[in-house]
Amino acid sequence: MAEFKDKAVNLLTTKNAQKLYEKVKDLPIIDYHCHLSPKEIYEDKPFSNIGEMWLGGDHYKWRLMRACNIDEKYITGDADWKEKFIKFASAVEGAFANPIKDWVALELQFFFNITLPLNTKNAEEIWEAANRVIATEKLSPRKLIEKANVEYIATTDDPCDDLQYHKLIASQGTLKAKVVPSFRVDNIVLAKDKGYKEYIKRLSTASNIQIVDLESLRKAALARMDYFVEMGCKFSDVGVQGFPTKIADDEQANKTFIKLLSGKEVADDEYNGFWGNLYVFLGQAYAERGMVMQLHLAVTRNSNSVMLAKCGRDSGFDCVGDAFDTSYVRNVIDEMNNRGGLPKTIIYTLNPTMYYPLVTMCGAFREVVIGISWWFCDHKRGMYETLNTLAELSHIGSLVGMLTDSRSFLSYTRHDYYRQIVCDFLASVAKEEDFDYAVEVAKGLCYGNAKRLVEGL
Amino acid sequence: MAEFKDKAVNLLTTKNAQKLYEKVKDLPIIDYHCHLSPKEIYEDKPFSNIGEMWLGGDHYKWRLMRACNIDEKYITGDADWKEKFIKFASAVEGAFANPIKDWVALELQFFFNITLPLNTKNAEEIWEAANRVIATEKLSPRKLIEKANVEYIATTDDPCDDLQYHKLIASQGTLKAKVVPSFRVDNIVLAKDKGYKEYIKRLSTASNIQIVDLESLRKAALARMDYFVEMGCKFSDVGVQGFPTKIADDEQANKTFIKLLSGKEVADDEYNGFWGNLYVFLGQAYAERGMVMQLHLAVTRNSNSVMLAKCGRDSGFDCVGDAFDTSYVRNVIDEMNNRGGLPKTIIYTLNPTMYYPLVTMCGAFREVVIGISWWFCDHKRGMYETLNTLAELSHIGSLVGMLTDSRSFLSYTRHDYYRQIVCDFLASVAKEEDFDYAVEVAKGLCYGNAKRLVEGL
Amino acid sequence: MAEFKDKAVNLLTTKNAQKLYEKVKDLPIIDYHCHLSPKEIYEDKPFSNIGEMWLGGDHYKWRLMRACNIDEKYITGDADWKEKFIKFASAVEGAFANPIKDWVALELQFFFNITLPLNTKNAEEIWEAANRVIATEKLSPRKLIEKANVEYIATTDDPCDDLQYHKLIASQGTLKAKVVPSFRVDNIVLAKDKGYKEYIKRLSTASNIQIVDLESLRKAALARMDYFVEMGCKFSDVGVQGFPTKIADDEQANKTFIKLLSGKEVADDEYNGFWGNLYVFLGQAYAERGMVMQLHLAVTRNSNSVMLAKCGRDSGFDCVGDAFDTSYVRNVIDEMNNRGGLPKTIIYTLNPTMYYPLVTMCGAFREVVIGISWWFCDHKRGMYETLNTLAELSHIGSLVGMLTDSRSFLSYTRHDYYRQIVCDFLASVAKEEDFDYAVEVAKGLCYGNAKRLVEGL
Repeated sequence: MAEFKDKAVNLLTTKNAQKLYEKVKDLPIIDYHCHLSPKEIYEDKPFSNIGEMWLGGDHYKWRLMRACNIDEKYITGDADWKEKFIKFASAVEGAFANPIKDWVALELQFFFNITLPLNTKNAEEIWEAANRVIATEKLSPRKLIEKANVEYIATTDDPCDDLQYHKLIASQGTLKAKVVPSFRVDNIVLAKDKGYKEYIKRLSTASNIQIVDLESLRKAALARMDYFVEMGCKFSDVGVQGFPTKIADDEQANKTFIKLLSGKEVADDEYNGFWGNLYVFLGQAYAERGMVMQLHLAVTRNSNSVMLAKCGRDSGFDCVGDAFDTSYVRNVIDEMNNRGGLPKTIIYTLNPTMYYPLVTMCGAFREVVIGISWWFCDHKRGMYETLNTLAELSHIGSLVGMLTDSRSFLSYTRHDYYRQIVCDFLASVAKEEDFDYAVEVAKGLCYGNAKRLVEGL
Repeated sequence: MAEFKDKAVNLLTTKNAQKLYEKVKDLPIIDYHCHLSPKEIYEDKPFSNIGEMWLGGDHYKWRLMRACNIDEKYITGDADWKEKFIKFASAVEGAFANPIKDWVALELQFFFNITLPLNTKNAEEIWEAANRVIATEKLSPRKLIEKANVEYIATTDDPCDDLQYHKLIASQGTLKAKVVPSFRVDNIVLAKDKGYKEYIKRLSTASNIQIVDLESLRKAALARMDYFVEMGCKFSDVGVQGFPTKIADDEQANKTFIKLLSGKEVADDEYNGFWGNLYVFLGQAYAERGMVMQLHLAVTRNSNSVMLAKCGRDSGFDCVGDAFDTSYVRNVIDEMNNRGGLPKTIIYTLNPTMYYPLVTMCGAFREVVIGISWWFCDHKRGMYETLNTLAELSHIGSLVGMLTDSRSFLSYTRHDYYRQIVCDFLASVAKEEDFDYAVEVAKGLCYGNAKRLVEGL
Repeated sequence: MAEFKDKAVNLLTTKNAQKLYEKVKDLPIIDYHCHLSPKEIYEDKPFSNIGEMWLGGDHYKWRLMRACNIDEKYITGDADWKEKFIKFASAVEGAFANPIKDWVALELQFFFNITLPLNTKNAEEIWEAANRVIATEKLSPRKLIEKANVEYIATTDDPCDDLQYHKLIASQGTLKAKVVPSFRVDNIVLAKDKGYKEYIKRLSTASNIQIVDLESLRKAALARMDYFVEMGCKFSDVGVQGFPTKIADDEQANKTFIKLLSGKEVADDEYNGFWGNLYVFLGQAYAERGMVMQLHLAVTRNSNSVMLAKCGRDSGFDCVGDAFDTSYVRNVIDEMNNRGGLPKTIIYTLNPTMYYPLVTMCGAFREVVIGISWWFCDHKRGMYETLNTLAELSHIGSLVGMLTDSRSFLSYTRHDYYRQIVCDFLASVAKEEDFDYAVEVAKGLCYGNAKRLVEGL
């Protein structure tokens, strides 16, 4: 990492913040939740140009461009990468306080050694310079992973996934970083979605268990879970819209599931009972296996029907969901706990107005912690908000740490962003006399806590 | 405007903020949403005294006085203007961090050249001095409009309004500022309110269309809309309590409307369907005419029944409404979009806890933007909050800009207040190297964006 | 109080803040809402050790220890006080931005003259030093009350309480501070709770009125209220989960109450009507007696069933409740007002997202004010938030002032914490020219406003 004064993005506002940062800046990265492609990691193809790297699939950036009313042609349309890149530069130049502006600067400096600010004037020059680096250094997924000093990568995978690329990466044995799958159960849970029956068929095939009722569904899920665990899986995840408002007993949940399989109409209330039952069951299974449960709350997907039809999912039309009744979450957590099967749990919310109820709820269950600012909340002020709220209502040292949640190998600089913020925050609240304890907390937040988690400590 | 050091209210905390402010402070004002009276603008009667100017109808100030437990006699009662003024001074002197304290200082300096702080000690002297200025300069609506360098005023008008004063102002041709009506549809929408049938009769008369069903209601609304557009109308508005939770089809909406007209009981659910249908229809009509749709959300009106009976509406007994499910708004917006008729839309909310869902929802529809802090939110920290949130979740340059939302001609100094905040904010988030881009954004936020909007660009 | 530079916790960031603080730091304390035990005050037993003083019943501290994953043995278990104290020290050392870290420092300095920071290294030394002070000075409840210059203590008492210790304290006449009961009606209201019928029997006995219907319930409540008022009671309180969503008429409420007494099933809706009716009735009764009504909103109790069974209530498993519809509160307030019986009211909420609707609702009823940050909100940033929001939406001078809400006699240093924050806040928003008015507001917020309230002015 560059010296403070030369850093493209420097959030360290005091000497003590800089001193703290010195202690954590070179720690390895534990990326315990991301959407990187194991296939891409395995194949390790060099990138072609900075335009594709940045704009190929990053809907954060697409949204920024739309906010500038840039024509869709230059976003998801058929303009060439250079044109798109130049339009993107015009969106970034005035995007003050948007994290993308900072991330862009961090990525340009760290991976490309470019310190020019991205704007219309410099776009051409940066395009050339970055592409020169890509060509010269043959930048590829692994090059970036290694350059960023990443130690652990937990990808996000469907229970039906055969994890062949995880296997290939492991058998290859050449990547320093450990790459393991995570058990993401969205598709098991979204039983009212169109393709559900087909999905259950795939799950039957993958698990080699004929799914006909709740019991066989559970068996199939456990079979896949065990396979994932065998492959090093430590984290589960779910990130669907809504949250079960009730927990049906097994008999009722079984009836509902059979109805769902048969394609019959199922009332929301009934569906919720099945869903809650499933969550409680899965939670217990995670607990038994020493897995961590991640809950991603309060997201609204695909808000713009016209653009969904045009561009498909994950194209930048998701929103922060409305705050919902946290008693639903509490009920599920409490029920797992009652049955003696509450796993270590991380709760992320996209809606910051839920922090007070959620953080204090975490305080009532020692296995449960709040996750760091996620997605739309993952900007400087958003991180300060999470750090502050956690520190005020609980204990700052209980935060697991940063993750990228990203599809891009360039996003590892966000860890540096986070570390600067953590150090600046701690320096602002710790007294001189507490400096050593601040160092300890900082190390935990930047590496140690996540390390302990992946090692099951 | 006065030099920084001599400014009664100076929010520019850095040199760069001051440099930025120099670039925007003298730009004209586009007041695209206010409640000024076209009659008063036309008649242009000189004001009598500062007491009446300030306390004649401004329920913001009345609330402040009530918070100090000042007897209602001095608020809406029969005390004379001087007595009221002196009581008001006693409320202002300790009203730290309340925007009224700043606005008062700005108005005294800008319009009256008075720099004494308003308090019990100075009240008498300020009373005399201000009234002297009113008398000497024959201060009148137009004097204030001209002094404030206002270029464009969009008043708020009922669709039944004949707009005679707008006509008279236009035919007179002596006011530099353009004064146009806005199409405020509250009365068309509030179909469960007492006077609804009478209102519909008035609308029939005004449009010369006998309203007997949904179709004729629509025709009448369009007729008035077209008349407004002819008179220069560019903005629509609605600011009622609640939001339609569903969208009925035309047949159902027609049935409900006929029921409403006949005075029969209509269930909330049914009413909501009609209401949603109307919103979608109106939105399409705005889009066809290149009009801007404004939605004012989350307000609770007339909370105190006793005082409503005593003082009537708009007397300072409204509240911030509870946050409600933004999916309702999304549904209406998405439906307009589906039908190819989503107008340029500005969404204002009185409840800041709705910002995250709303701002990200705006990000999913490029025609829709969030509006600047409104009413209770229109204070320094409230503006920073809006600016920050927009910048973090979208692009700061997409903000349309400031409006007064005021009944008072003195309120134009709020534009200066806003401009200082914008410049201070931008200076705090822009790096030295980005200064030119910050200037561009500042100019857009203070004038350019609103200008482009009123010109339909 | 110590000089600024030597203060263990110094929140005064400017000269003006220090100047303001000089004006208020030595004012007496009016603690108009706490949970101190009148029995302990009467008996005045010297404390045994700092471990028991701090960790005997303070579930704030227990939560902090759980957040550090300290074994329950050292929290509510059978470890000895010294072991618990040392574990607690290890939780405090890194608890940056948690108010407990500051409170601990304030208490150590003010009551024990210890300025060492509490951490693992110093724990042993502090244990010895503090216990030496306890022994030497024979620290007891009254010693602490007197040392803290407390003038008025309103405890929290059940209507059935015979107030014998209040009587004994009064007849003794040796304590400078006035100790009076408050009328906390939770048990009257929680009619669906298990022990309700037994409670009503106790209330019958205490009031000497056979409770068989709504009328006799009311009579009994009034009898107890009058007894409390006789004993100096000035404040009522309620702090249960939820809020009545409707107000039944007397006939319906009577029917429901009789059903509740008979142990029959009562629908939520019906219960709510009874509950709302009771609130309105009680409010009018408070108003008649010049009592202050306190409402504590948005709390969720005993979230963790397993730990509730193990440790019982008030053990640190409560949470911030979800924001709920403030129109319920408005309806109750408005109804009292309609009937001419709206008492002076203080509304506290545990969920800060309710501030905007609540503070503006208070602005619509001059008898109603928002209370200072409570429980989980009672930290530095939480207080700034309340002060700012009140100042922006109402008038900062309308805040009643600080209370401890505590079970611990050591908590009086929180008044110093609050006073520093008030002064720092006022200094940051008041201009030089307004200094005298800032002093006046500060004095009101730190003492005068509460004083006027307890004196019924």
